[in-house]
Amino acid sequence: MYRFFISPQNIKGNTVSIDPEEARHIEKVLRLTVGDVVVCFDGSGQEYQVRLEGRENGILTGQIIQTSLRESEPVLKLYLAQGIAKGEKMDTIIQKSVEIGVTDIYPVSCERSVVRLTGDKAEKKVQRWQSIAREACKQCRRNLIPQVMPVMNFTSLLEKIGDKPAIMLYENEEQTSLKSLLKNQLREISGQELFLLIGPEGGFSSQEVEAASRQGIYTASLGPRILRTETAGLAAASIILYEYGDLG
Amino acid sequence: MYRFFISPQNIKGNTVSIDPEEARHIEKVLRLTVGDVVVCFDGSGQEYQVRLEGRENGILTGQIIQTSLRESEPVLKLYLAQGIAKGEKMDTIIQKSVEIGVTDIYPVSCERSVVRLTGDKAEKKVQRWQSIAREACKQCRRNLIPQVMPVMNFTSLLEKIGDKPAIMLYENEEQTSLKSLLKNQLREISGQELFLLIGPEGGFSSQEVEAASRQGIYTASLGPRILRTETAGLAAASIILYEYGDLG
Repeated sequence: MYRFFISPQNIKGNTVSIDPEEARHIEKVLRLTVGDVVVCFDGSGQEYQVRLEGRENGILTGQIIQTSLRESEPVLKLYLAQGIAKGEKMDTIIQKSVEIGVTDIYPVSCERSVVRLTGDKAEKKVQRWQSIAREACKQCRRNLIPQVMPVMNFTSLLEKIGDKPAIMLYENEEQTSLKSLLKNQLREISGQELFLLIGPEGGFSSQEVEAASRQGIYTASLGPRILRTETAGLAAASIILYEYGDLG
Repeated sequence: MYRFFISPQNIKGNTVSIDPEEARHIEKVLRLTVGDVVVCFDGSGQEYQVRLEGRENGILTGQIIQTSLRESEPVLKLYLAQGIAKGEKMDTIIQKSVEIGVTDIYPVSCERSVVRLTGDKAEKKVQRWQSIAREACKQCRRNLIPQVMPVMNFTSLLEKIGDKPAIMLYENEEQTSLKSLLKNQLREISGQELFLLIGPEGGFSSQEVEAASRQGIYTASLGPRILRTETAGLAAASIILYEYGDLG
């Protein structure tokens, strides 16, 4: 069944007003009509069965006939802090990490990020990424929409992390693997919060690695092959949410 | 250091002839010259340090100064059988599954594959995918190039699998998770071979699921969210190679 997003402010009691873009999809593309039932979600975790009622002042409305709290959230809250990568890579990362089950996404301007996002440009990008996250939720049946945070620099990220547990993937880490962290130091992480730090295309700079280590962030390798930035994040998030979330 | 592919037939004793396209990259892009050392691999698992010598009959040649067997292969041989997906998705799947550590890739024409590949068109596609696999190896420092098999239909895939262990991801599987398979029925799989079957965009048909089950192939879910075909394969391959390979 198709799933549609409704802003929370468009739900009044049992009546919902459907966003014009979603309404267009419902009526023109799917050719659904009055009396048909669609599934809607408002991003808060709730899921609604909505019977289409018709148009009122040009807005498609519907009646909620059933509300449920759909459990599609991992028990571990995994925050992906992604060094900003070029072109469409960030789009792919946002889309796929939402499917995999990341809780929120922090786009980070790193020393080796080629793309520099500031001011209006950064804000527009974040809006675009947020809409990709929302679309991914519709598709993967997730009712809580991960938040894409405002672009921040590496220092602000470290402040944000504070003393929360965090893993930085680092291709030159030779002592500690992600696996050994998950099986040892982080084996009590389930039900908690964890930051996963992934560098941009060129990886983290040695200054960034040192600053992270000083703060107690674990550095870890992913094994003998060198993964691209967009592959590394998705592989590591899959592994972490397999071990301590609900994936697999 | 940059890594270049050399066909095994271009290695004669300690002398290697470098492919014109790779030579162009070495000389024109990287501006390397006689005396410089590059790392080459021939797809067999060997890695060579090669000192550039100069041109002979128009071909760039070099001398092997060191040979090593670089271990970047997982102990579990994981074969990805991927239902052919649309557009660039297959390219992404090939590239990323090579990085993650899949051993070979079987493109499968499924009932719900929208793209129909036969004859010349299929052969050209496989050549293209094979070159993507080779490029991915250069980038991720993998010395054994995964083979992209000729396009086959689902019945031929089942014959190919025979009685080897295999997992089919199936979104309607409600009993068995990938995790429970890996922790129970397949817990002795390390060092062996395993097929991972991923459907195209529309998933496997019920006939395909039944045929697979009759043959003893496990069906498994990946958890509460519905992953896109390209995400599902990469997440599942990451998890399997984390559990029984060398990833993480």
